[in-house]
Amino acid sequence: MLSPSPNSSKKAFSRVALVGKFQADGIDEHLRELAKLVSRLGCEVFIEASTATQLNIKDYPIKAAEDFAGAIDLVVVLGGDGTMLGIARQIAGSQVPLVGINMGRLGYMTDIPFQSVQDTLPKIIAGDYEADTRTLLDAAVIRANKEINHALALNDVVVNRSGISGMVELAVHVNGSFMYNQRSDGLIVSTPTGSTAYALSAGGPILHPHVAGILLAPIAPHSLSNRPIVLPQDSITIIEVINGLDVIVNFDMQSQTNLQSGDKIEVRQSKKTITFLHPRSHSDYKTLREKLHWNEYPSTF
Amino acid sequence: MLSPSPNSSKKAFSRVALVGKFQADGIDEHLRELAKLVSRLGCEVFIEASTATQLNIKDYPIKAAEDFAGAIDLVVVLGGDGTMLGIARQIAGSQVPLVGINMGRLGYMTDIPFQSVQDTLPKIIAGDYEADTRTLLDAAVIRANKEINHALALNDVVVNRSGISGMVELAVHVNGSFMYNQRSDGLIVSTPTGSTAYALSAGGPILHPHVAGILLAPIAPHSLSNRPIVLPQDSITIIEVINGLDVIVNFDMQSQTNLQSGDKIEVRQSKKTITFLHPRSHSDYKTLREKLHWNEYPSTF
Amino acid sequence: MLSPSPNSSKKAFSRVALVGKFQADGIDEHLRELAKLVSRLGCEVFIEASTATQLNIKDYPIKAAEDFAGAIDLVVVLGGDGTMLGIARQIAGSQVPLVGINMGRLGYMTDIPFQSVQDTLPKIIAGDYEADTRTLLDAAVIRANKEINHALALNDVVVNRSGISGMVELAVHVNGSFMYNQRSDGLIVSTPTGSTAYALSAGGPILHPHVAGILLAPIAPHSLSNRPIVLPQDSITIIEVINGLDVIVNFDMQSQTNLQSGDKIEVRQSKKTITFLHPRSHSDYKTLREKLHWNEYPSTF
Amino acid sequence: MLSPSPNSSKKAFSRVALVGKFQADGIDEHLRELAKLVSRLGCEVFIEASTATQLNIKDYPIKAAEDFAGAIDLVVVLGGDGTMLGIARQIAGSQVPLVGINMGRLGYMTDIPFQSVQDTLPKIIAGDYEADTRTLLDAAVIRANKEINHALALNDVVVNRSGISGMVELAVHVNGSFMYNQRSDGLIVSTPTGSTAYALSAGGPILHPHVAGILLAPIAPHSLSNRPIVLPQDSITIIEVINGLDVIVNFDMQSQTNLQSGDKIEVRQSKKTITFLHPRSHSDYKTLREKLHWNEYPSTF
Repeated sequence: MLSPSPNSSKKAFSRVALVGKFQADGIDEHLRELAKLVSRLGCEVFIEASTATQLNIKDYPIKAAEDFAGAIDLVVVLGGDGTMLGIARQIAGSQVPLVGINMGRLGYMTDIPFQSVQDTLPKIIAGDYEADTRTLLDAAVIRANKEINHALALNDVVVNRSGISGMVELAVHVNGSFMYNQRSDGLIVSTPTGSTAYALSAGGPILHPHVAGILLAPIAPHSLSNRPIVLPQDSITIIEVINGLDVIVNFDMQSQTNLQSGDKIEVRQSKKTITFLHPRSHSDYKTLREKLHWNEYPSTF
Repeated sequence: MLSPSPNSSKKAFSRVALVGKFQADGIDEHLRELAKLVSRLGCEVFIEASTATQLNIKDYPIKAAEDFAGAIDLVVVLGGDGTMLGIARQIAGSQVPLVGINMGRLGYMTDIPFQSVQDTLPKIIAGDYEADTRTLLDAAVIRANKEINHALALNDVVVNRSGISGMVELAVHVNGSFMYNQRSDGLIVSTPTGSTAYALSAGGPILHPHVAGILLAPIAPHSLSNRPIVLPQDSITIIEVINGLDVIVNFDMQSQTNLQSGDKIEVRQSKKTITFLHPRSHSDYKTLREKLHWNEYPSTF
Repeated sequence: MLSPSPNSSKKAFSRVALVGKFQADGIDEHLRELAKLVSRLGCEVFIEASTATQLNIKDYPIKAAEDFAGAIDLVVVLGGDGTMLGIARQIAGSQVPLVGINMGRLGYMTDIPFQSVQDTLPKIIAGDYEADTRTLLDAAVIRANKEINHALALNDVVVNRSGISGMVELAVHVNGSFMYNQRSDGLIVSTPTGSTAYALSAGGPILHPHVAGILLAPIAPHSLSNRPIVLPQDSITIIEVINGLDVIVNFDMQSQTNLQSGDKIEVRQSKKTITFLHPRSHSDYKTLREKLHWNEYPSTF
Repeated sequence: MLSPSPNSSKKAFSRVALVGKFQADGIDEHLRELAKLVSRLGCEVFIEASTATQLNIKDYPIKAAEDFAGAIDLVVVLGGDGTMLGIARQIAGSQVPLVGINMGRLGYMTDIPFQSVQDTLPKIIAGDYEADTRTLLDAAVIRANKEINHALALNDVVVNRSGISGMVELAVHVNGSFMYNQRSDGLIVSTPTGSTAYALSAGGPILHPHVAGILLAPIAPHSLSNRPIVLPQDSITIIEVINGLDVIVNFDMQSQTNLQSGDKIEVRQSKKTITFLHPRSHSDYKTLREKLHWNEYPSTF
């Protein structure tokens, strides 16, 4: 019996861009395999520009991430959460959804193992998926009442001291109300997505990706009662550098700005979002359980 | 010059019930003073039934808490957060707002000091206030597919072991998805309001009262990665007692049910809410700062 | 070529008692196998009295744990850390060392897998081992100036509230100096050995087994600055129950005493010790790494 | 009745050096007052060289800290814990004890308020004191098998990342045994004295100053089970930088060395110690209670 040609099947997405983590071993072979699969499913395949350059792939049309909006219907990312983070920040607000495929190690965002891609990707492209929309943070760096930088973050905006200096002192206001002066190694403002990244290491709680909130997690705070705090999603947080040498603000640990005393970082939820697509079988709790080694059925002591 | 008669002033609330913490020293004198003030403001004063009984106050009409709905416009509570918690649980869903007055020690919910009541209460009764609506949890205890108890909680629903037994083992499902089996001293399901109560002692984060979320905070969990987790407000959490002697579920630490292996507690956000009224100058961050001894302006080391 | 008869080999221990965890599946078969091995090594084999009763083993002489001192040279324990704990408490001070053999799941104290017992046990019995001496706690329960109970603990002495009541209030003095009044779920006084047990779940640090110190770890303390504290090994800690219903003191979670307000628990390091023997290849850090899932060589993010 | 001339009283110390925190407001006036008091007690007064230079004090002989050994019997420090730390590191091993006097804010080491100095200092100088000997850490920085730096620390040796880079990866060995590879913001090796400084902010336990142990406290570790660990005092810890840009090792946050991948920091307890003298009424637990705002007698909820 013949299986129906994939080419003729129902498609929810026509123009698919592929993005790969450049440094990963064997990535180009996997990416070509992926391209063939997507092509066989009747989609038009594009390779994201920097991926194409780095991996020297010339067999498919090339498209820069900034041109995805309106020209691409789905992005398939091959790599880890860091790769996913990088491309997601670039195309946030474009309305183009992403699918994340890992090559061996489960990620929070890259939840489909490459080995199962022949099973799962056709279903997603056929429209059988679970959509998962994530919020981003919008951060402005203000010096002497002038905005000197502006960035988006899918995980977190981190103000922290350098290794040379001691504690940094920060004054934090939320929606115009003074919250506290904090002396610490720094302060993490995190989305629910970022709550399982750096904020978790700093002692923060896990936020389900769809919690309507913003997490503030201090890093090694001097005051023991400066606990992590979750704010409503419409909160505007202003962090002022009161004191500290070589203070830096990082966005998703991928870009940064050096700060001076008196600089303010204004963080709010962005109007832009990003959407991940998962197989129907996806469970956020399963991912957490596997990533955090929660025992599914612990044996008795 | 004569000040305008308070009696003739604009009133947002006409029928005011007073509730007092029975055991507090000097409470009846303060309550009578409060009654006179409210009366002078032109309101009809009622004394909550059990307060009247305990303090032997007979000069005002008495009203039971269960009869407040439709008959009372505002409840003024004199005492601590525990007193506030008790009456709030009773009248949740009645649409009657509460004002909390403390007698010396600031509470999270009882934020007006008795000394300033002459200034602040007239303004609130005149309609000059900030409304602060809080969510509650609705918990059903299910044994052998039958609901054996049902309760509301403004702070938290706590499943925990007794002192005699060792760890309890719980299986937790959220929205039908298995989350984990947990061995611990217990599990706290908390509202944002409850995040500064028991959950904070157990290592949970602070949730701003208006965060649309529900907090799960494990108590002394065996697995070090069983961290506090914040769920979206529409989550339904089912906690099953897998193993454990003398396991108990507590509602706001004010009422409880003994549990057996196999019992399930189903917790969701209640449709009922409760509203606190604050003076305009109220700031949640100021309360946190004072309660948690955050240093407003820390001196240098 | 013939291997030398084990019977004729050098022996550091002649009279060996075997102890087994009664409830474990297949334990009697394993215990008989162990008895044969020890016998072949030329040792006289005894079965600990309650082990013999429970497992109905009649082929070897029986010896009660309280009679080990002077009559037994080595105790071989088959089971988990709980079994080891139980027998160690009974024979503490007897100078008889213990070897711990697990049946599949590595323990902190039962560090030899049953599969490798044919290799490791002969060496230990021949005197090729690493000795590891552990401290115990000695706790007296005092009511109205009279000692009403006295117990040893290898892991911990735990004062905690029952599930019904709210917080317990404890006053803690060390060496006659007032330390603090603490409101919490309870307080754990732990040996270094116990630091990886309940105290770790409560947020305590890990103490290397040979640290000369005693750990106090509060359980869900009301004050966020009530952090775990390590005291010198000669410290005498007195915990007084100030307030609390159904407060209990547990010794190694294996025996307990109900407490009343005013009761005091006086905890000090015992003069008795217990010694575990390990294969030469033993490393405490390797055990920690395996038990706590520390990544030996973490891959890049 | 005349009080006996202080000049004629019994003296345990004859040659007293004064050290002051340069930047503190009004310090020179207080230092002169202190000098007069010490002089009146019949002691020979010296001013530490850099203190004399900074405060322009010329009325007393000057002595450099490196010349204290054999020439000075007691050092009186006026300032905070930072000032005490600085001088203590310089004179460690000299056998000269220190007394710490604060000017308003209690320190862990500077425990005598300036207001009470007229009462307490005469007693200490007369030999009525409590001696409190503290351990120090000795750290060698090794690059390509060559020691490139060597330093003492009274509080801590801290290996940490700079603000620019992401996590640092460290390999930790103790006494030749591999402990773990750790990815984190850094690792604190702390004395008991340092346990209430940076290590406490990073989540470490409090160690009583006389615990015979060394604390390792990771800073924001990637693995949630990388908990603080207390090692026996004779442990030699080797921290190797596996991976990380701009990694730095700090000694008491007062001096530092830039590190490269492959560099090793070898930390052990120093043979040198330092001794603080306290009034007889001194209690470490009282200091902790006051510094950490532990409630002495908490009121009911």
